[in-house]
Amino acid sequence: MPLRAGRKQTACSDQGLLPDSTASPQPTRNQPMYPLEDGSFAPRNQWYVAAWSQEIKRSPLERVILDNPVVLYRTTDGKVAALAAFCPHRGFPLAKGDVIADDIECPYHGLRFGPDGACTLIPSQDVIPAACRLRAYPVAERWQWVWIWVGDPDLADEALIPDHFEARLTDPAYRNAGGNYFEVPGRYVLLHDNLLDLNHVPYLHKATFGGDGGGAVQIPEVVAKETTISCTFTQPAIDCPPFLSALFGYSGPVSRTYVSYFYAPCLHVIVDSISRLDPATGVTEQLGDLLHIHAVTPATATTAHYFQGEGQNFSHTEPCLSEAFRSSEMVRAALEEDVSATRFIEQSIAMNRGRLSEILLKADKAAVLGRRMLQALIDAEAPATR
Amino acid sequence: MPLRAGRKQTACSDQGLLPDSTASPQPTRNQPMYPLEDGSFAPRNQWYVAAWSQEIKRSPLERVILDNPVVLYRTTDGKVAALAAFCPHRGFPLAKGDVIADDIECPYHGLRFGPDGACTLIPSQDVIPAACRLRAYPVAERWQWVWIWVGDPDLADEALIPDHFEARLTDPAYRNAGGNYFEVPGRYVLLHDNLLDLNHVPYLHKATFGGDGGGAVQIPEVVAKETTISCTFTQPAIDCPPFLSALFGYSGPVSRTYVSYFYAPCLHVIVDSISRLDPATGVTEQLGDLLHIHAVTPATATTAHYFQGEGQNFSHTEPCLSEAFRSSEMVRAALEEDVSATRFIEQSIAMNRGRLSEILLKADKAAVLGRRMLQALIDAEAPATR
Amino acid sequence: MPLRAGRKQTACSDQGLLPDSTASPQPTRNQPMYPLEDGSFAPRNQWYVAAWSQEIKRSPLERVILDNPVVLYRTTDGKVAALAAFCPHRGFPLAKGDVIADDIECPYHGLRFGPDGACTLIPSQDVIPAACRLRAYPVAERWQWVWIWVGDPDLADEALIPDHFEARLTDPAYRNAGGNYFEVPGRYVLLHDNLLDLNHVPYLHKATFGGDGGGAVQIPEVVAKETTISCTFTQPAIDCPPFLSALFGYSGPVSRTYVSYFYAPCLHVIVDSISRLDPATGVTEQLGDLLHIHAVTPATATTAHYFQGEGQNFSHTEPCLSEAFRSSEMVRAALEEDVSATRFIEQSIAMNRGRLSEILLKADKAAVLGRRMLQALIDAEAPATR
Ligand code: FES
Ligand code: FES
Ligand code: FES
Repeated sequence: MPLRAGRKQTACSDQGLLPDSTASPQPTRNQPMYPLEDGSFAPRNQWYVAAWSQEIKRSPLERVILDNPVVLYRTTDGKVAALAAFCPHRGFPLAKGDVIADDIECPYHGLRFGPDGACTLIPSQDVIPAACRLRAYPVAERWQWVWIWVGDPDLADEALIPDHFEARLTDPAYRNAGGNYFEVPGRYVLLHDNLLDLNHVPYLHKATFGGDGGGAVQIPEVVAKETTISCTFTQPAIDCPPFLSALFGYSGPVSRTYVSYFYAPCLHVIVDSISRLDPATGVTEQLGDLLHIHAVTPATATTAHYFQGEGQNFSHTEPCLSEAFRSSEMVRAALEEDVSATRFIEQSIAMNRGRLSEILLKADKAAVLGRRMLQALIDAEAPATR
Repeated sequence: MPLRAGRKQTACSDQGLLPDSTASPQPTRNQPMYPLEDGSFAPRNQWYVAAWSQEIKRSPLERVILDNPVVLYRTTDGKVAALAAFCPHRGFPLAKGDVIADDIECPYHGLRFGPDGACTLIPSQDVIPAACRLRAYPVAERWQWVWIWVGDPDLADEALIPDHFEARLTDPAYRNAGGNYFEVPGRYVLLHDNLLDLNHVPYLHKATFGGDGGGAVQIPEVVAKETTISCTFTQPAIDCPPFLSALFGYSGPVSRTYVSYFYAPCLHVIVDSISRLDPATGVTEQLGDLLHIHAVTPATATTAHYFQGEGQNFSHTEPCLSEAFRSSEMVRAALEEDVSATRFIEQSIAMNRGRLSEILLKADKAAVLGRRMLQALIDAEAPATR
Repeated sequence: MPLRAGRKQTACSDQGLLPDSTASPQPTRNQPMYPLEDGSFAPRNQWYVAAWSQEIKRSPLERVILDNPVVLYRTTDGKVAALAAFCPHRGFPLAKGDVIADDIECPYHGLRFGPDGACTLIPSQDVIPAACRLRAYPVAERWQWVWIWVGDPDLADEALIPDHFEARLTDPAYRNAGGNYFEVPGRYVLLHDNLLDLNHVPYLHKATFGGDGGGAVQIPEVVAKETTISCTFTQPAIDCPPFLSALFGYSGPVSRTYVSYFYAPCLHVIVDSISRLDPATGVTEQLGDLLHIHAVTPATATTAHYFQGEGQNFSHTEPCLSEAFRSSEMVRAALEEDVSATRFIEQSIAMNRGRLSEILLKADKAAVLGRRMLQALIDAEAPATR
């Protein structure tokens, strides 16, 4: 199942991509992989999800995006303002302040700043020095998300945001529910690794949907383009897992296909298609697609933001099944398992002080391609002479 | 209102002092200001407040003063002993030990040390090596404070302690109540900045006395001498703020004048004079002075001790109004606001890893002069060849 | 009282060993001592206690031994497996996983490893790369202890484990009870210092057995061999301390002799011999020996594992007196005092950033010899050219 967009795709060859893990015994471990190449962090001239739309209100929110502390709030006309988080006067954190009309007021000495970052009031003097202003970050609301650009503002082209219709997020055939958010104490690449190798589901999620028949171990079919990767795998004949039975009102044999799409460097959408199966004839009848929606945004070198939602292309009746599923205890618990895995591995990296190496398996192909994509995006930004 | 002491004062000229913030737009921010010059910390050959007298009892107290861990206790005759806080034998912290007669006993192997730092007992041997001693720090009790000198002991001249009568602390016309203490998770300079720019009152203290008419935004008149700064500003006609009405038993129009005195590097006394005002004639009649008393002592490079008290020159009847005011919920809450501001800015500095810069406003004149005074005191101590 | 083993012993001369602390006043303090020589940590080609036997069960336990994170569990035949603690695939901590038959399963993607460290299962592929394995550490169970070797595996000779019969641990004349364990937030050398100078007992343990007549201040007789140290001291005539009266069912005059044996770099056994004393005639009659058993294992450069037990060579009736004593509130509280002392001194070292120096007393002779033994073991391992 190719990416929906029409652009030409070339299947990525295995050759030279991965160490041949089926070859004869190797004397040494593979080279360290984290964090990417030494000194690399994340591509900066990219859009990232900063927040759920519903998180941004009149009262300000502070969030660190690629090492940039940002304060976010809504102006009177409902637009999102994203400003550098510290007052240029004495460095007071503006998120502690009030929003007054369209401006944010610093709680220390009352300076005010508009959504463009310009200082609009200094209580103790009439003249406002030109240098007294905040950096304003480009933002764009798409679907239920606030996207932000912390790189070179001249390059902030909204056309670079992944196509939300193509990704099924704004396709009216789908009904999608966002809202899960986690502050993750681990580097963002670990979350991409996790999302690009679903072989973890039956193990890491044993206690949640992995133990409920919700996963399979398979080497997926991986298709890579310049900045996207799709992974496909199929369970041709399984008993409908209980949590799906509850959604579809059907129990019995099903055929299930996952296709996971990664839009580097931030977005993952997994299309989880279920069909009723007549085992006698092999005839299938589509029950519907679930969408598992994820966005991963680097915060600092060793922390990340994780946004997650659920969607469906069936049963648009009330109440919304996807919203119930997204906010269910099982989904929340499964996401906590992923967050914990990330924390544990980050702790292992710290404990091994850069000496942690990795064995790469066949199943890691998509994760390795994902890292290479991130590294290529980083390298493309770096000065040619470095 | 000049400083009380008779020494000749010269008004500090603005010229060359501050960047001209009214000038035409500047392309860049000002240079980073914290912590003072790079590598600077605090002047060492100075007296600092180590504790309230009432804090030092027979049982020992450990406090870090300019990076010196010090243990403080009272001898049998009530004098304050201030010794290096770690046993010279194995480094055990002496503040965990008992005071026996005039000596402090190390809880590990029982070595004892007198208030002069000399070892007086080694349980396991008769001869006491000369090197087995603690550094003893000069101390002096003044008013309700224990002052300490952690610099070169040969320079510890008590005449260098600010004149407590001049500062109104021991002037019998005043009745003063100390006792507020805060461990501040931020560098000491931030507290001096705070105390040298009262324009923060209506904003930072909005929820306490700042919202009660207790502050005004003004550019004060600043007068600097070699190691003192005074700042004056006046509210010629305001309604008596409620918390002052309660103290004076008067509500109606008042004229109010603040004069804040900074005795570098530790002490601030703010004289807050209130006069009843006849708005028709402009005639005023003195109701009294409040004193707002502050001492700031560096602990480590990024932490400080903050001592605060209140005083008055009226109504010496019981119970003491200043003591009630000092220990009131409003004053405590306002001080917590200052401590929080300091913590927040320290966190901003840490988060920006030295890249935090500042915009200097006209109202920052006294704070900038204060920093320069501290820097000059530090520079005067440094080797000429550095 | 010499070491029990027959090897020739030479009493260690004082000459040149310690600074002469009885000499005339010295102008400076002694040189810093921690951590041993600058950059030294611990001898690696040595056996260390990793755990109490009873701590290692089927479910895995993670413990850091000389900076090696190790996961320990028992196989189906009851043997102890000790493996590197992080999965070679993505670094997930294996102690979070399950033990299945003789293998440990990684909770992330289900890889399994046998007790020899070999990977036995990769769910997503059939071929197991040779590099996909864990380091397995040699272990040996002796008495109630699991000993581990984290150094060069080719040198892991079990004959190097201290002789447990000689040390009285497996001598049938003794009935010994282990089981106390502490994670100590301080470097391991501090615990050896503590155990090699029992002059701390009347002070540090004032609130426990030290205040119960359980200690004395004396310069012990110190006998050092290549890797062992014994310290002897005697209380020829004391009243039986209450906690001993309770054990022996006797109160009255006793003669008491301590001999503490240090088997570098891990084990201490203190033989505490009590005899009934007729003060009129000076005739003594042996009541029995208590054993105070200690093992100290470096975890990281600034943390350690501390294992403690108690034993006796009298009254082998039920219930076991030594077990009751070992698990008594008094013994546990006294050990907490030692752990706290270690934590306090580690904090002092950190606070003094390497500037903490020490005064060496006559009573420190054994501790200094102990440190020199550790340093010599470390130096013997280092490359000759360093
Ligand atoms: S720090 Fe923001 S107004 Fe002063
Ligand atoms: S550490 Fe203070 S007496 Fe030994
Ligand atoms: S991290 Fe252990 S199996 Fe993948």
